[in-house]
Amino acid sequence: MRLRNKQWAKPLILAHPEMILVRPEKMQGHWQSRFDQARPLYLEVGSGKGQFIVEMAKTHPDRNFIALELQEAAVAMILKKQVALKLPNLQLVLGDGADLTDYFSEGEIDGLFLNFSDPWPKTRHEKRRLTYRDFLRQYQAIMKPDALLQFKTDNQGLFEYSLVSMNHFGMTFDLVSLNLHHDKRVTDNVPTEYEEKFSADGGRIYELVAHFKH
Amino acid sequence: MRLRNKQWAKPLILAHPEMILVRPEKMQGHWQSRFDQARPLYLEVGSGKGQFIVEMAKTHPDRNFIALELQEAAVAMILKKQVALKLPNLQLVLGDGADLTDYFSEGEIDGLFLNFSDPWPKTRHEKRRLTYRDFLRQYQAIMKPDALLQFKTDNQGLFEYSLVSMNHFGMTFDLVSLNLHHDKRVTDNVPTEYEEKFSADGGRIYELVAHFKH
Repeated sequence: MRLRNKQWAKPLILAHPEMILVRPEKMQGHWQSRFDQARPLYLEVGSGKGQFIVEMAKTHPDRNFIALELQEAAVAMILKKQVALKLPNLQLVLGDGADLTDYFSEGEIDGLFLNFSDPWPKTRHEKRRLTYRDFLRQYQAIMKPDALLQFKTDNQGLFEYSLVSMNHFGMTFDLVSLNLHHDKRVTDNVPTEYEEKFSADGGRIYELVAHFKH
Repeated sequence: MRLRNKQWAKPLILAHPEMILVRPEKMQGHWQSRFDQARPLYLEVGSGKGQFIVEMAKTHPDRNFIALELQEAAVAMILKKQVALKLPNLQLVLGDGADLTDYFSEGEIDGLFLNFSDPWPKTRHEKRRLTYRDFLRQYQAIMKPDALLQFKTDNQGLFEYSLVSMNHFGMTFDLVSLNLHHDKRVTDNVPTEYEEKFSADGGRIYELVAHFKH
């Protein structure tokens, strides 16, 4: 969702170049040097206010995480949390999911998260959906072949579309859950802000985990 | 679901060899000769009481249909309807979905329906699910490469399983619907007996349409 602009966002971002990048291209192939040590590297495309990625970084100290977010106001809210937490395994990026192959080199990413992406329900906006084939092609380029893509949404239409799109792309499904919060197979779900509210209202959450290797 | 045995079933079946086969192996490769004329050939595996296949045969006079059912009591109920209707494009078979490659020759089938198959929820019964890979291999053998398999269920676990199983088998998805009766893309759904009752109670129906060709 679109957030109101925040006057404090830009100054905060400029004050913390050690935590957030606004020109991520320059790190292509060298992302591990942004962390205190090299660890398997996980990327979230569209982090929103960051509840998911911050919680993941806390609970998985053996992994490095990158939160990518297009909105300055949103990424600044993640940064505010990180300024307080100083998690050594979390880096933020103000950037565009359409430019991933400029930001990362081939096979640099060990896992990728898409959480509650904009559904873009109109057919003429199909190309903007983060599970459209052009995006999948970019994920494939930057991910290791057996790395997992984890996709969550509450939007039925987007989930139906994504199952077909990922199947057509030749991806291999690892898990399909049509009601994630009542799925006995999934015991380690980390909810986003939106997911907590939506699910508390009784809505269903869908999840697809898949990889590119055949 | 399992029906009570009916004493009239066997005599009725034996009295109508022109409508129902109990030794379908002998028709392998020659199914069109069972109909008044050759038409594209559609098979339902597990027809139950036959509401779906009878309605399909009525509304699609340009296609031939075969209703395959393992239970004598169930197939006899379809036969009772067919004795009254005498649809020229419907044939019944008392037989087993596990023996399809004995009944049909390669590419003989132009479309296949699986409706509300037994979910067999226990992991140790996976091999009995009609979307298990051994069944898919048989469907692939008897279907034309671009023929569509249409699978409907109300069982969430079976649908999740089937999405993964068909994806792993290399099938190409044509349609995924997570709420068939409220799906604007689907205007020609023919419900089964069970589907009508279940949906009237507010339950969701899932549908997957897919084919084997890449």
